[in-house]
Amino acid sequence: MGEHKVLVTGANGFLGRHVARFFARNGHTVVGMGHGSWSPDEWRSWGLSEWRRADVSLATLKEYSEVPSAIIHCAGGGSVAFSIEDPIADFVRTVETTAHVLEYIRTVAPSCRIVYPSSASVYGTVDRLPITEDCRTAPISQYGVHKLMAELMVASYARQFGTSATIVRLFSVYGCGLQKQLLWDACRKFSKNDATFMGTGDELRDWLHVEDAAELMFAAVENASIECPVVNGASGEGTTVREILIHLISSLSRTDTKLTFTGTQRSGDPSRYVADIENAKRWGWSPKRRWREGVEEYATWWRNTSL
Amino acid sequence: MGEHKVLVTGANGFLGRHVARFFARNGHTVVGMGHGSWSPDEWRSWGLSEWRRADVSLATLKEYSEVPSAIIHCAGGGSVAFSIEDPIADFVRTVETTAHVLEYIRTVAPSCRIVYPSSASVYGTVDRLPITEDCRTAPISQYGVHKLMAELMVASYARQFGTSATIVRLFSVYGCGLQKQLLWDACRKFSKNDATFMGTGDELRDWLHVEDAAELMFAAVENASIECPVVNGASGEGTTVREILIHLISSLSRTDTKLTFTGTQRSGDPSRYVADIENAKRWGWSPKRRWREGVEEYATWWRNTSL
Repeated sequence: MGEHKVLVTGANGFLGRHVARFFARNGHTVVGMGHGSWSPDEWRSWGLSEWRRADVSLATLKEYSEVPSAIIHCAGGGSVAFSIEDPIADFVRTVETTAHVLEYIRTVAPSCRIVYPSSASVYGTVDRLPITEDCRTAPISQYGVHKLMAELMVASYARQFGTSATIVRLFSVYGCGLQKQLLWDACRKFSKNDATFMGTGDELRDWLHVEDAAELMFAAVENASIECPVVNGASGEGTTVREILIHLISSLSRTDTKLTFTGTQRSGDPSRYVADIENAKRWGWSPKRRWREGVEEYATWWRNTSL
Repeated sequence: MGEHKVLVTGANGFLGRHVARFFARNGHTVVGMGHGSWSPDEWRSWGLSEWRRADVSLATLKEYSEVPSAIIHCAGGGSVAFSIEDPIADFVRTVETTAHVLEYIRTVAPSCRIVYPSSASVYGTVDRLPITEDCRTAPISQYGVHKLMAELMVASYARQFGTSATIVRLFSVYGCGLQKQLLWDACRKFSKNDATFMGTGDELRDWLHVEDAAELMFAAVENASIECPVVNGASGEGTTVREILIHLISSLSRTDTKLTFTGTQRSGDPSRYVADIENAKRWGWSPKRRWREGVEEYATWWRNTSL
């Protein structure tokens, strides 16, 4: 694509940072908006030429004198657990911000494209693997419900108002720097000599390296249209929680660690997820990082951070 | 059911007024909140013992010293056309208010029931009649998308937080006093000697008298549960726009009126709607007013109002 001015909302978040850096490295001007306090040195190192610490709203978006040509709307609630603790805050972060971004595009920047990083959580419990994008959506967590609500609005603006859009349903995105979810929780537990995990260990997840996710966002901008294509963002490979943890233990050289599973599932966590990624591949994208290397990389990062 | 303290949001609206009056007539205390300016005499005549002119929000709801035992959440956007003109305002009215009502119940009034009057517009274009509640939802208007988003939240609060809820998907609700939609538009046109309508006249609609709708809201309170039942609110009978207009013309004694149809459909209007109402009937409810009498009643009301 030609040179874009890209706005990444939630640019201080895990996905947002990597997306910003990827676009910047590919010659685009990237500006960021969202919550979180980081130094200019820091946000510049992630590729941002400008950072606005603000709620993502119609009013704050209108403050840009030059409209962006694409918005990657990474802002939003970040976890199932938080959405249960504080559902209205999760609603505001995920659904309201999306309503405002869409309305900004409709009223101020009609030729701006939007990429919406959604989540596999919109599928809920599925009875057939791999999951294709036309699978019924039936989220079981508040987080997933809010993601689906945002998706519905994005698709509707495309249909009703001609907004060029894409929805990418991300599966388990991970990578160095992620301070939540399985790898992070596990590293922290292991360092306290705890190795007890909820669930059975047989839960199947589809892991996607965050840099592959960022690259997919790039392909999504190019493929945005009023048809609002929906693609899964994943590796297409299922890995059990046990496999991941065993490989993490070995990567951390903690071979004396003995894994235990409680057998009870966490509320809102579906048990088996593997994506069909043929639609994303049709864009010329494919995941490049294998989960084993990704886990090893994460272990190295953890050891360096926790030294 | 025992005596309830019922809060009707949007109590100044067409549905809200009739719902308020129906509950009051059945021995319940009814308070109202929402927009619109009406005199105490007027709101008292509609059964309200109290009226608060306010945005429906967590903050304004928390001002009630006594929590309600049921909320009929009638507040929300009122038309497809408005949702296209001002989608963000429609979002605020329909989706945000629902998020706030649900959060109020979760945090302040956990035993309060919620009835959500949704809309047949959540179905979008259907390929099989009559429409059952398990039919795929695929709204084609912004209005319908917002109604579906609100539904998703209501169902999710029921599942996740144990909120007792019901969703009633209302079809074409009409009755004296309704100053929008087909009957109103037609009466106004006829009085200007205009009889040209969009569409083909063969559009099929399922008409429900507003007093039947109010009675159904009553049954919905009784049947609210964490299963969040979803029922269609309709007559179960399909009537074409042409049939309605012909009967309206005869009821208005305007027999010289010659109907014309443009043949082009309005954006966001699906063409064929008839509901399966078996689920609502299982609650012991059934529609009592036939559309012919309803149209005659409306014609009488119009003639008296426009004198």
